[in-house]
Amino acid sequence: MPQKTIKLTIEYIGTNYCGWQFQPNGVSIQEVLEDRLKKITGRKVTVYGSGRTDSGVHAEGQVAHFKTEAALEAPLFQRALNHLLPEDIVISESVEAPAGFHAQHSSRGKRYRYTILNRKYPSAFLRPFAWLFPNNLDMDLMREAARHLAGTHDFASFQAAKSKTQSTVRDLTSLDIVKSGDTILLFFEGNGFLKHMARIMVGTLVDFGCGKKRPEEMKEIIEARDRKKAGRTAPPHGLCLERVFY
Amino acid sequence: MPQKTIKLTIEYIGTNYCGWQFQPNGVSIQEVLEDRLKKITGRKVTVYGSGRTDSGVHAEGQVAHFKTEAALEAPLFQRALNHLLPEDIVISESVEAPAGFHAQHSSRGKRYRYTILNRKYPSAFLRPFAWLFPNNLDMDLMREAARHLAGTHDFASFQAAKSKTQSTVRDLTSLDIVKSGDTILLFFEGNGFLKHMARIMVGTLVDFGCGKKRPEEMKEIIEARDRKKAGRTAPPHGLCLERVFY
Repeated sequence: MPQKTIKLTIEYIGTNYCGWQFQPNGVSIQEVLEDRLKKITGRKVTVYGSGRTDSGVHAEGQVAHFKTEAALEAPLFQRALNHLLPEDIVISESVEAPAGFHAQHSSRGKRYRYTILNRKYPSAFLRPFAWLFPNNLDMDLMREAARHLAGTHDFASFQAAKSKTQSTVRDLTSLDIVKSGDTILLFFEGNGFLKHMARIMVGTLVDFGCGKKRPEEMKEIIEARDRKKAGRTAPPHGLCLERVFY
Repeated sequence: MPQKTIKLTIEYIGTNYCGWQFQPNGVSIQEVLEDRLKKITGRKVTVYGSGRTDSGVHAEGQVAHFKTEAALEAPLFQRALNHLLPEDIVISESVEAPAGFHAQHSSRGKRYRYTILNRKYPSAFLRPFAWLFPNNLDMDLMREAARHLAGTHDFASFQAAKSKTQSTVRDLTSLDIVKSGDTILLFFEGNGFLKHMARIMVGTLVDFGCGKKRPEEMKEIIEARDRKKAGRTAPPHGLCLERVFY
């Protein structure tokens, strides 16, 4: 049988997983998908994601690909997988991709959304999906600081300590902050993200929103290329991978 | 100590409860609240809700009241309860109400929201909160049929069979249907709702949306005053009590 490449778009609630990628301690999304694909095709299948998501991080539009010789038509993988997957993982699309397609290497960029619930008491509905932040956050101060982050920079200050990456230069094409009621949404779009980059940017912007740092200090934090100069890493459950661009 | 009346606004995910009201089979929201208030005040407290919600139905703004001689100031009941309540029940407000206030009898009306996910595959995020309806629904046909429902009518056709209510006349002040992507939201506002009324209206409107019934038949269904003429009862998990008006 000729081999074909299948591109999957995947929605998941990250709460009960150790993240996208295989880990010795806990069940990963990748592992669950490979297990179900083995049931469907009768063979070991390797699933390649567009990138890792941390434990607890959600996805509305993660993308992955795999190669198969199975005769099953591409759209039927969606139905077969959704039948077998747990309730917190859903395939929203399965299509045949050109032979050279690679979920990670073909990606042109990604959009992440971070949700902050800015009030004193929790929400039953948002609890698994938003960082509950009780202190008042000044939107103007956050937006002013955010303006320094957008663009092409060396984001070494916003990378998890001990990460080993060849280049820490990335293009953050946009960073929008929207407030609606008690909910603050931060949208990050860029050609690539370093480990914990979105979460460290959120943790740092929150320091500006509280008035702990003056907006012009953001430039110094970027230029320092030092993780210690940036703020805390915001908790994973507020983060959602919205879309991967190809 | 003088007795005071406390008005609570409550948010809950109904999935793991048998509904608002005490039931022999399962844990009710009312029961959980009374249990935690007994822990806080050291005395048995009776909590009166604005009305029942069925098992599986959610609330963003259920309202309840109780009387207490406890010295604790009204806003502190919110903090104390949120500390003790399970994660799927949250108090969004606790205020002192006038002595004559009664969550049910003082209510002037309610707003419910029903969510339909109108596509062929489920959503990881919306699964507990939306009715997955795979067949195409025509918004124009649903809206035309809905126009007949709005207003003051005898809603006997839209009441759970075997219900015993003195009058089945209610004023449905508005019924709005909004579509956004795959999601259809139905907003019901009225001075009172019969048992299962919102869910039977949704189940019936879906028959119109599928073209199973012609829009002018809605008038006949209302006039029949017969539960059998209306459509199915839509599942509870799509329903949310948004707000109670006073």
